[in-house]
Amino acid sequence: MRYDLCVIGSGPAGQRAAVQAAKLGRQVCIIERREVIGGVAINTGTIPSKALREAILHSTAFKHRLAQASGPIGRRDVTIEELTYWCQHVIKGEIDVVRSQLSRNGVEVRVGTGTFVDPNAVRVRHGNEETRIEADHFLIATGTRPARPKDIPFDHNHIVDADGLLGLHSLPRTLTVVGGGVIGTEYASMLQALGVKVTLIEGRNELMEFLDSEIRESLQYHLRQAGMTLRLGEKVVKVALIDAPDGARSVSGKLVEATLESGKVLRSDTLLYCVGRQGCTDELGLDAIGLQADNRGRITVNEHYQTEVPHIYAAGDVIGFPALASTSMEQGRLSACHMFGVPTQSTPELFPFGIYAVPEISMVGWTEEQLTREDIPYETGIAHYREIARGQLLGDAIGMLKILVHQDSRHILGVHCIGTGATEIIHIGQAVMSLKGTVDYFVETVFNYPTLAECYKVAALNVVNKLIHV
Amino acid sequence: MRYDLCVIGSGPAGQRAAVQAAKLGRQVCIIERREVIGGVAINTGTIPSKALREAILHSTAFKHRLAQASGPIGRRDVTIEELTYWCQHVIKGEIDVVRSQLSRNGVEVRVGTGTFVDPNAVRVRHGNEETRIEADHFLIATGTRPARPKDIPFDHNHIVDADGLLGLHSLPRTLTVVGGGVIGTEYASMLQALGVKVTLIEGRNELMEFLDSEIRESLQYHLRQAGMTLRLGEKVVKVALIDAPDGARSVSGKLVEATLESGKVLRSDTLLYCVGRQGCTDELGLDAIGLQADNRGRITVNEHYQTEVPHIYAAGDVIGFPALASTSMEQGRLSACHMFGVPTQSTPELFPFGIYAVPEISMVGWTEEQLTREDIPYETGIAHYREIARGQLLGDAIGMLKILVHQDSRHILGVHCIGTGATEIIHIGQAVMSLKGTVDYFVETVFNYPTLAECYKVAALNVVNKLIHV
Repeated sequence: MRYDLCVIGSGPAGQRAAVQAAKLGRQVCIIERREVIGGVAINTGTIPSKALREAILHSTAFKHRLAQASGPIGRRDVTIEELTYWCQHVIKGEIDVVRSQLSRNGVEVRVGTGTFVDPNAVRVRHGNEETRIEADHFLIATGTRPARPKDIPFDHNHIVDADGLLGLHSLPRTLTVVGGGVIGTEYASMLQALGVKVTLIEGRNELMEFLDSEIRESLQYHLRQAGMTLRLGEKVVKVALIDAPDGARSVSGKLVEATLESGKVLRSDTLLYCVGRQGCTDELGLDAIGLQADNRGRITVNEHYQTEVPHIYAAGDVIGFPALASTSMEQGRLSACHMFGVPTQSTPELFPFGIYAVPEISMVGWTEEQLTREDIPYETGIAHYREIARGQLLGDAIGMLKILVHQDSRHILGVHCIGTGATEIIHIGQAVMSLKGTVDYFVETVFNYPTLAECYKVAALNVVNKLIHV
Repeated sequence: MRYDLCVIGSGPAGQRAAVQAAKLGRQVCIIERREVIGGVAINTGTIPSKALREAILHSTAFKHRLAQASGPIGRRDVTIEELTYWCQHVIKGEIDVVRSQLSRNGVEVRVGTGTFVDPNAVRVRHGNEETRIEADHFLIATGTRPARPKDIPFDHNHIVDADGLLGLHSLPRTLTVVGGGVIGTEYASMLQALGVKVTLIEGRNELMEFLDSEIRESLQYHLRQAGMTLRLGEKVVKVALIDAPDGARSVSGKLVEATLESGKVLRSDTLLYCVGRQGCTDELGLDAIGLQADNRGRITVNEHYQTEVPHIYAAGDVIGFPALASTSMEQGRLSACHMFGVPTQSTPELFPFGIYAVPEISMVGWTEEQLTREDIPYETGIAHYREIARGQLLGDAIGMLKILVHQDSRHILGVHCIGTGATEIIHIGQAVMSLKGTVDYFVETVFNYPTLAECYKVAALNVVNKLIHV
């Protein structure tokens, strides 16, 4: 069997590349190791975590507001069965959508593990069966899995990685999260919102260093206000499962004990380990094509997503940062266009970041720190959700939108948002940035009332008033 | 006392004009008849209805999803006290925001009824006190009130207008809504969502004729699916309060009987009358300045919002369509800029419409019908929420986004959306239209995943695939 393109991995990058190539009239197949398609985005990562988040927010939000309660709703309000049921329902729906999209476009899906035998052929092994697939182009889109250091005694009930969290039998009373990157922060904040007592440990002195400092500061402040313990600049040196001492509260009779380099000992019902992810490249047979992954299993590509073997491309999480479903899709599309000679435009500096923590965060463009470092003169404009009718309606007292505007050209240099709907409304600013609008666009535009989008107008008026005095 | 600007009415148009003038360094006062500021937008109209909507959606949504129930949640799940409490809380918050904004900008607020005594002076009467206020410019922003025809026997419990709905002592079991405009449709759909059995009567053959037909069709279909009875092309000729006949179900022992021109008789616990609104101009003393309102109390203005007396402006609902808070604010801003010689840019054809029904609707730009009438060649692209991960997460199976694209220039001519978040995400399309982007912007842009904003990309790919064949 010979194809124009053989994609290994059916996550966002692989899907999008396959569909793009098929739309260009090419013969395409996708090799997927699991029985279900979708990669971690659908099956264990993005979608399940967002489904969990949605369920948590809805189960707690309304009562909060009516009661104007100050603390989180008790965890007994929602059972893990309810949360898991809802997640499975959403996952199933997503798989159906992807499967139908692939089949509509004539993309063949083959179940099995793909391994290169030479630069023009892949062997697909499924149980005892083996098939040889030849293709003119290949795309490695195998993604990542959580890194599982040998000295962490993972099990299924107490010490888990991000993939294992939804498999827990019951909600813990207390949770230690190791790793304050995107995934660790998302899960930590969700479970805190559900009433679990969470301690988040991060080796750096701050969470998610790529964020604008003011937004990160707000996030950290509100996580702490919600009752979370942040241990920043701390390293875990030992994790062990111990019998709960007499008198200690424990759901299962066991407790997880984490020892920090600083000597502190933390105990909790459950520990979630979210430090680092490993590229899924060990079974790819990279030797056979003369490629090598780095020490974290990642593959190096050029700006066209080509590996050192020009007809073999790689895209998605397996090539590293930013490792978001949205950017992976774009990389898939761009690589497919490049292999078949279709010109594309792409502006990576306008890719948005979406962090589905509680509260939600999104950004596009420069941060204040980057602009200052590059000596680009800017002014900031801020709108707080509480000043906006829609913010009042949502009862979101902490949300805020910040726009960064060039002092001379008045172009928008960056948009940063924390609060309800941040990942949606960021796209308004992204469009204005991309189409070279200035801050005056927001001043002169009529927005629906009441919407969060009005924040753009308030923030813009704030900037414009400051610019008068420059 | 003499001011640069005297504004009569403290709703969105008045507020925005006053703040704009104050920011330009002018002396401004606002005259407000009520003890509280904000006009109908805050006190009886926009905000209370949106607060009610928010409360209803949150109290019903989550259970819906977990249970995958097909029918609405019983009305006993939420009491009217809870709904009203929540609304009052939001209203109070909004009033605080507006009051603080006015005082921060040095705008004087005077309580009383303003009446022109001559073209340069207004008498403010509050109880027995009278003050004379002189100003160089005036803005009439007195808004509207529900029209209350004499032959409708309004009371406080059974036959009410939109202002009276939130004053009901208990939720009706059955409700007749007369008038399928924006307000009637919004309330009818909200109460239906709460489990009230609603009949909506509209004299025209369709709801809200300004909508794109496909969107209206979807709205009408889904209202009927939710259990609402639509009586289109029907006229109410008589409304009476009668004793409930033996055996009839009635909350209060009374029933409202509405007789239609076609002879049908409809009975319900409550009737909400939402046909037409009347400009609040009767106490303005228009005679004294040589102006006259039309038969619905509205004032005519030119494109600068000037009445026939050039230094007297009018803005907001009192000048008629579209009578939305968002456009009223813009009219207020534009009129203040015009009176003090500040140049402005405004593109009324890009004002968005937001309809907070259940489901939510929003639009910007042309409808298909308008484009066809004007012989402008276009192609449509559609994205259904159910195809989008975020739509799956929200459990919104009916949402959809439609973009209209010029067949030659590929510019965006209109965006129409029905479903969750419609009033927010419409602003992405509005920005692209305004800044002269083409459909290719959406194809080439990376959107956060999972968001509703991704609908733009799906819809754009849909258009682009069709355009290949043109």
